[in-house]
Amino acid sequence: MLSKEEYIKGIAAGSTRHLSKAITLAESSLPEHRNLALDIIEHFGPQENTFRIGITGTPGAGKSTFIEAAGKELLKSPKTKLAVLSIDPSSEISGGSILGDKTRMAELSNLPNAYIRPTASGSQLGGLSRNTRLAMLLCEAAGYTHILIESVGVGQAETEIKQLTDLFVLVLNPGGGDELQGIKRGIMEVADILVINKADGKLEQQAKLTAKEYAMALHLKPSAENQWVPKVLTVSSLNSTRIDAFWREANAFNDLVSANGYKVNNRYAQQAYWVKKNVEHLILQKIANYQTQIQEGLAHNQLPEKLAEEIVKNIGS
Amino acid sequence: MLSKEEYIKGIAAGSTRHLSKAITLAESSLPEHRNLALDIIEHFGPQENTFRIGITGTPGAGKSTFIEAAGKELLKSPKTKLAVLSIDPSSEISGGSILGDKTRMAELSNLPNAYIRPTASGSQLGGLSRNTRLAMLLCEAAGYTHILIESVGVGQAETEIKQLTDLFVLVLNPGGGDELQGIKRGIMEVADILVINKADGKLEQQAKLTAKEYAMALHLKPSAENQWVPKVLTVSSLNSTRIDAFWREANAFNDLVSANGYKVNNRYAQQAYWVKKNVEHLILQKIANYQTQIQEGLAHNQLPEKLAEEIVKNIGS
Repeated sequence: MLSKEEYIKGIAAGSTRHLSKAITLAESSLPEHRNLALDIIEHFGPQENTFRIGITGTPGAGKSTFIEAAGKELLKSPKTKLAVLSIDPSSEISGGSILGDKTRMAELSNLPNAYIRPTASGSQLGGLSRNTRLAMLLCEAAGYTHILIESVGVGQAETEIKQLTDLFVLVLNPGGGDELQGIKRGIMEVADILVINKADGKLEQQAKLTAKEYAMALHLKPSAENQWVPKVLTVSSLNSTRIDAFWREANAFNDLVSANGYKVNNRYAQQAYWVKKNVEHLILQKIANYQTQIQEGLAHNQLPEKLAEEIVKNIGS
Repeated sequence: MLSKEEYIKGIAAGSTRHLSKAITLAESSLPEHRNLALDIIEHFGPQENTFRIGITGTPGAGKSTFIEAAGKELLKSPKTKLAVLSIDPSSEISGGSILGDKTRMAELSNLPNAYIRPTASGSQLGGLSRNTRLAMLLCEAAGYTHILIESVGVGQAETEIKQLTDLFVLVLNPGGGDELQGIKRGIMEVADILVINKADGKLEQQAKLTAKEYAMALHLKPSAENQWVPKVLTVSSLNSTRIDAFWREANAFNDLVSANGYKVNNRYAQQAYWVKKNVEHLILQKIANYQTQIQEGLAHNQLPEKLAEEIVKNIGS
């Protein structure tokens, strides 16, 4: 194992090998590995000028193709460095997406300023997003200016992605309401930018129509939280059409929330959320140590409510 | 405030006034009230021969009318006593259902062996079902043989109701798939008895057809957990038709799971669930005491992961 100093030196010098190894430490279930990762992150301190973008959408809407197109467009500027991370609870079942991610973003992954890190395997959703948060902080420490976090838009993942990122992007297929059946109700209302993908060839007209329909349905108006007016865009990731328009809107969002203080306040509130999430996680781990006490207490007809109080009294020590 | 002994004497003598006051103690946010309720429950010990039935369904499916009809049918036997409790997170918003519950089950509430207790107000879902659990135990201590717990079939309530009861009943309207849009996917798969209500007048044929469709869709076969084959029934709560058939099936379920050991094992597993839920609740309450530490830590760029560990170390003391 490398020393803390070696990791810091390597990451500061832009070594993706050191970065990848540090992310593996953060994902480890061994406390000494994880703590080393935390120490490394703490050394670099918060990186307030990065831009964190969460991307979700229905399966088949072309999220990866969109991310590849958006990444290539972004990296035309030599000042930017892009890290792509993913939260995909289903990858566990399908046997991991380590090769998959790099294959499906082949062009992007070959660019020197792009870093693609797939989901760590072997953990439930809560663990995935806790790990993704640390991976993000390590990428920022390594000088990545833009972090794209991708998730499949089902269940709880989009809540967690909102707690990780500054901007929330929803990628959708051209087409009507059927399209939305696979994703949670209400997710459209919290998206900052809706991207209707595949606006090319036969589907171009339909994509434009879908964009109009969503724009009408959503009554787009300034958010009470951050003053941003959500946008609905059509793009063709296949032809890289209007990807520049996406970045104009994304950057306008970033400028607005940087100027009005929302970005820094939101990141602060997110950190408070992750304190709570980590406390819950640690407590659940610790409850496992009390199985014998729980079994004995219940066998003696002790009430769960009283057992819980006893456990909480002792849980820290 | 009455003494513990007075409560115990009153409840043992069948005083609903004492029972109601004890439930109010259990719902209190004051620890001394809640602890007194726990002491009373502990005095009476577990009541293994009671029958706990959870009932949920879409709004408008006639749950209350069904409960009233089922309750009246049950109480024809002089040996039974029925308590009806409810978990309704929406009652908070609508301003409580204290009067509503008694009005909508007017006939049942006038029977001497029926006790109807509406949702306590002023708490979130987790709190509601924690309180309902204690109300159930107090009713059992007071000699109620059957406990019906009703919830609206949306969101998380049905998970909690499964953790409170022996038998899970889903009440549905006659009609097709549209009917199911308001309730969680998968809930039909975990129901032990599906009741298609309103099988009277014009809707009778449709109710029968719906029952057939659900029976086919569900491939009814013995549960791996408890050997019970789920049933789909049509009833008319309005005319009290086939309510006796419902009780035959419910009692057959109770006989089966009492004989094969599932009932006692399931109640044991439920208690372990409530230990965990109560620990989580106590911890979340305690996190509130750490707001200053969290704010100061974050202001000093301490990582949420490290703050969480510090808090967990101190949280018991």
